[in-house]
Amino acid sequence: MADIQESKESLQESLQQVITLLNKHRLVEDLVHKQDMPKQELVQTLVHKQNLAELQKRLDSLHPADVAYILEALPLEQRLDVWDLVKAERDGEILLEVSDAVRQTLIADMDSDELLAAAEQLDTDELADLAPDLPKDVLQELLESLDSRNRERLQSALSYPDDAVGALMDFDIVTIREDIALDVALRYLRRIGSLPDHTDKLFVVDRHDVLRGVLPLKRLVVNDLDSEVTDVMADDAVVFHPEDTADEAAKAFERYDLVTAPVVDENNRLVGRLTVDTVMDYIREEAESDMLSMAGLREEEDIFASVWKSVQNRWTWLAINLVTAFVASRVIGLFEGSIEKVVALAALMPIVAGIGGNSGNQTTTMIVRGLALGQISGHNTKSLLIKETGVGLLNGLVWGSVLGVIAYFLYDNVALGMVMTAAMTLNLLLAAVMGVMIPTVMSTRFNRDPAVGSSVLITAVTDSGGFFIFLGLATIFLL
Amino acid sequence: MADIQESKESLQESLQQVITLLNKHRLVEDLVHKQDMPKQELVQTLVHKQNLAELQKRLDSLHPADVAYILEALPLEQRLDVWDLVKAERDGEILLEVSDAVRQTLIADMDSDELLAAAEQLDTDELADLAPDLPKDVLQELLESLDSRNRERLQSALSYPDDAVGALMDFDIVTIREDIALDVALRYLRRIGSLPDHTDKLFVVDRHDVLRGVLPLKRLVVNDLDSEVTDVMADDAVVFHPEDTADEAAKAFERYDLVTAPVVDENNRLVGRLTVDTVMDYIREEAESDMLSMAGLREEEDIFASVWKSVQNRWTWLAINLVTAFVASRVIGLFEGSIEKVVALAALMPIVAGIGGNSGNQTTTMIVRGLALGQISGHNTKSLLIKETGVGLLNGLVWGSVLGVIAYFLYDNVALGMVMTAAMTLNLLLAAVMGVMIPTVMSTRFNRDPAVGSSVLITAVTDSGGFFIFLGLATIFLL
Repeated sequence: MADIQESKESLQESLQQVITLLNKHRLVEDLVHKQDMPKQELVQTLVHKQNLAELQKRLDSLHPADVAYILEALPLEQRLDVWDLVKAERDGEILLEVSDAVRQTLIADMDSDELLAAAEQLDTDELADLAPDLPKDVLQELLESLDSRNRERLQSALSYPDDAVGALMDFDIVTIREDIALDVALRYLRRIGSLPDHTDKLFVVDRHDVLRGVLPLKRLVVNDLDSEVTDVMADDAVVFHPEDTADEAAKAFERYDLVTAPVVDENNRLVGRLTVDTVMDYIREEAESDMLSMAGLREEEDIFASVWKSVQNRWTWLAINLVTAFVASRVIGLFEGSIEKVVALAALMPIVAGIGGNSGNQTTTMIVRGLALGQISGHNTKSLLIKETGVGLLNGLVWGSVLGVIAYFLYDNVALGMVMTAAMTLNLLLAAVMGVMIPTVMSTRFNRDPAVGSSVLITAVTDSGGFFIFLGLATIFLL
Repeated sequence: MADIQESKESLQESLQQVITLLNKHRLVEDLVHKQDMPKQELVQTLVHKQNLAELQKRLDSLHPADVAYILEALPLEQRLDVWDLVKAERDGEILLEVSDAVRQTLIADMDSDELLAAAEQLDTDELADLAPDLPKDVLQELLESLDSRNRERLQSALSYPDDAVGALMDFDIVTIREDIALDVALRYLRRIGSLPDHTDKLFVVDRHDVLRGVLPLKRLVVNDLDSEVTDVMADDAVVFHPEDTADEAAKAFERYDLVTAPVVDENNRLVGRLTVDTVMDYIREEAESDMLSMAGLREEEDIFASVWKSVQNRWTWLAINLVTAFVASRVIGLFEGSIEKVVALAALMPIVAGIGGNSGNQTTTMIVRGLALGQISGHNTKSLLIKETGVGLLNGLVWGSVLGVIAYFLYDNVALGMVMTAAMTLNLLLAAVMGVMIPTVMSTRFNRDPAVGSSVLITAVTDSGGFFIFLGLATIFLL
């Protein structure tokens, strides 16, 4: 038995061992470079070779997913050292396991022949995952090397966007006819000899490949051997179309607890299947990408990406943030006269803006989540607005009063304290309204992903708005 | 076949229909209240009843997960109206499907008898999910109503923390002995007549319930009928222990593409199983909770929770934010003399703080993700620090220069421009260092979830730090 606790420890251990061996290896290489004495060289080359052999042995013993984990956890230079040691015939499956960003660094290190060799080890649906990252000439050569059926499948898979069922499905389908008895079906399976991973059901089709139903293995093994497939199969299975979005498919998998599901074309002909492991990877990636994009990062960044790549990945939202910060600064600029007269305003204004930003972000995060779960649409935006403004009003009055009292004690100025309370309340109301509206409008009017940068936008509104409200009220009531 | 596109449309449609019927129902009720004429009453009661009957029929036709979706998308009052219409014998399964926050609102609306009746429809592992939300007296009565085996199971499941395998596992296990032939096994299964959901493998145990291996159904159906279980079973299956964390289990399910896996005690005796649907729910919930907690929200908030509940959910981090904003304000207070002399400082300082906060949040988000994926540990913190300070330095020099030039043009002051550039660069370096350190130290030193509030903390540092650096440099070089 593979104990999960042990396997976790041994994974961390493997990583440590790989790093230790790599360091030894580098040490020897450095020595060889520095001391160019022939005798020593011989010895060092020997040590060197031992190290490498040990490292290679360690890598060979690991599951492809575990090698992928080690590659992702290593900085670029060490990562490529390890990658060179991985057996060529495992390249394909490991490339599938690593994240997109890391895969690009590995592919950049391989020549055409290596890439082709790696690709040849893969199934068509796996190739479709890899293909977008391959150089054009390699992809062309790869297409030519496939038989016509698989070429068609690959081209069709590539024709769907990344987040369509057509791009996620695989072709490992086992089909049977509906008019045979279960013992015939079982004999047929024994002749096949082995079933693809995740096979929890057989697909029942007619001779035009039109899907008639599905036969779960767990029904196959408990029913009478002389019943016919048609009597035992489920004909109300959930089916997908290649153009369905992965998001809908993921929700259906969760809702109906699916393990595999058939994918059919517009004529109800079976074209592939979707499996729970693909869906689970998709859910994980989506959740991560939501989290990253709320902070204004693009989809994926290898944590060891070069400085230059990281700057490129992050610059868009930094630039947007720069513009919004500049606007906020100009709002303050409008009131420089007031600040000159009451310098306390300069010290107090960031509190109003900051709390507004924090509160607005809380609201936006709730709404982004509700939108992602499909809980929010036109019919309930109004009740959400009412609730959130209620929360904003209550928080504004409570915390605004606390801060008003503090401001009064600090600067011995009652009017200043009251302006503080009023400004806090108004800015939290603004934060509540915009916190609901920004993601909802982005999603319903502009059909955009509300997670992308909504945090930057709400902060922009509460900053400029907070400064304007606070300094405006101060100018009216204090001067 | 249940077409997924249709099913999604019909789900939205169902929600709309339910809302329309609910509104009609309210309208009639209002009329009955207002016009107390006996004749009209009769007619209205009839219309009323028709509406309710139609609504009830609609609800009865829906999958429990779909009813749960509708309940979650309705404000509290309407939600309880619908809940009253759901058939009592479906209460249990629907309570399992709704989110924790919504479940609490539904349970609060039920009396002890209704709760007991709902609980009695559930399996022990399902009861374990529900139990923490039940009133104490109901839970006590429930425990007494169970037989000793199930009571033990329930108590043991409740003894594990929410995020342990022991709390997630179920008891729907089908076991066989290793020394029987496959055709005997098949005959045994046919006698059982049906297998639990998600059964993709049988668990092979000896007569002391010690796990010997697993027999995937897909091996059972392709191998010779006279081979023995022991020859066909897999003896290297991934196994879990009840005290393993759900997080490790989820990673193992993703890594090794599992559908179900055995859970064993310290003596390797089979105590339950873990299924992919539970793991997928856990992954979804974890991802959401990470996203929420980065914004300083507690685990879960029903989007239609009362204002008061929402205020409670959010106040901790708002209060922390208040303290950090107050500190930042006091930092500015130190430099009030400088601001009085050069009022432009008040307008420019939020830019330095704001960009620092944005950039720090990008770094922190990357690191939180890397920590969650297990890619970051002691050995690579240093290279991450080097990389992130590189990004910070480059961004600081580029954007700092842009802002320096703008500040120069706005205020016609070369020194002010240079202070701006220097302050931006230093604050982005601070953001980079703290953006790496805050989540890493929280996770490795204090063993805390780095997602919780790290966004609030990094913003606090870049605000106070930004103000201090900018105003400090200005005081030294401009006055």
